[in-house]
Amino acid sequence: MSAVRTTPSDSATPSDAALPSDPAGPAPGRRDAEATKAVILRAARYLLARHAHADITLKAVAERAGVSPPLILKYFGNKDTLFARVMSFETDAGGLLDAPVRELGRHMVRYVLESQVERGADPVLRIVFAPLHGEHGEVLRANFRSQVTARLAARLDGPDAGLRAELALAALLGLGVMFGIARGAELRAAALDELVDRYAPAVQAQLTP
Amino acid sequence: MSAVRTTPSDSATPSDAALPSDPAGPAPGRRDAEATKAVILRAARYLLARHAHADITLKAVAERAGVSPPLILKYFGNKDTLFARVMSFETDAGGLLDAPVRELGRHMVRYVLESQVERGADPVLRIVFAPLHGEHGEVLRANFRSQVTARLAARLDGPDAGLRAELALAALLGLGVMFGIARGAELRAAALDELVDRYAPAVQAQLTP
Repeated sequence: MSAVRTTPSDSATPSDAALPSDPAGPAPGRRDAEATKAVILRAARYLLARHAHADITLKAVAERAGVSPPLILKYFGNKDTLFARVMSFETDAGGLLDAPVRELGRHMVRYVLESQVERGADPVLRIVFAPLHGEHGEVLRANFRSQVTARLAARLDGPDAGLRAELALAALLGLGVMFGIARGAELRAAALDELVDRYAPAVQAQLTP
Repeated sequence: MSAVRTTPSDSATPSDAALPSDPAGPAPGRRDAEATKAVILRAARYLLARHAHADITLKAVAERAGVSPPLILKYFGNKDTLFARVMSFETDAGGLLDAPVRELGRHMVRYVLESQVERGADPVLRIVFAPLHGEHGEVLRANFRSQVTARLAARLDGPDAGLRAELALAALLGLGVMFGIARGAELRAAALDELVDRYAPAVQAQLTP
């Protein structure tokens, strides 16, 4: 199996997980810690796209992240708290929804594509791996509902806000699937601005019909 | 783990996999065989959404389908030929794309939703489980590209047909994710015609911009 061919974008490869460290910066220790935490979270996400929750060990996360298991315990407590963090959309939803509603379609499409292209991650795509994780898949679904869908719906005016939020997010999830999992060749070759122009109107039509 | 709570729509449960049998029909033997094959294929799909290809045994498929392993061998040859069939989109693409291009947006949205609601399956959603399957995930991606995306692109007029086909399919895949995996409550409660009215324009806009 080639790591390059089988790595989806909702993940980090060791090579793109280099830890930034700027000795001239104001708080290098804190910045290193944040970068290391991010690498650990991305390693956990990578494994959650491929293995059932029950089969993933802290050791496997540590190996993929290139850190020691005790370091993971130091930052995240234990396996349960680490995965609770990975299964939360709280932080991602903050960035995804950070625009006025009238511009939110373009912002969300751009945010998903930039996350995929620049960070090799997707803010919401991990919901698609819910079937792998049994009861933990239900946690993922419940989090998605309360932290993403309900939060978007609460910002929409007009009737059927809940349904329109789900349909807008459906379009965004599909974009992530086509880019990061199906790896559509044309999509991956196109300019980001062109994709936003072509796809955002469909999302915006749900938000402000 | 509750079977009801954790069964995604891209699958069959034993209870909805009853074999139709009409003794007054013209060829009951053939019809039973086709129904049994369909049940076996759906059992294999169910398992492919939850386990790596390498970890799935014929015995597990047989147990889920409620048939004997030799019956699977009789119909499909061996595990490789069974999974080659499950990883092909050929048959599904035929139904999904079976409408004139000017009506194809509405047809495809309706086809995905009807498949989910009536058959507990989705014609294309299994592409999202590609990351689970290593090299076999690449087969799934290549099949999706040639059997679905390229076939749709070939029917579109105008520039950038390949990109527009990918974007139209992205919207459809997202609808399947939101309905069958994230299990959006509003989406699942809405009338099918209403969903087609709301979502199909976004798909059609890619097909005939």
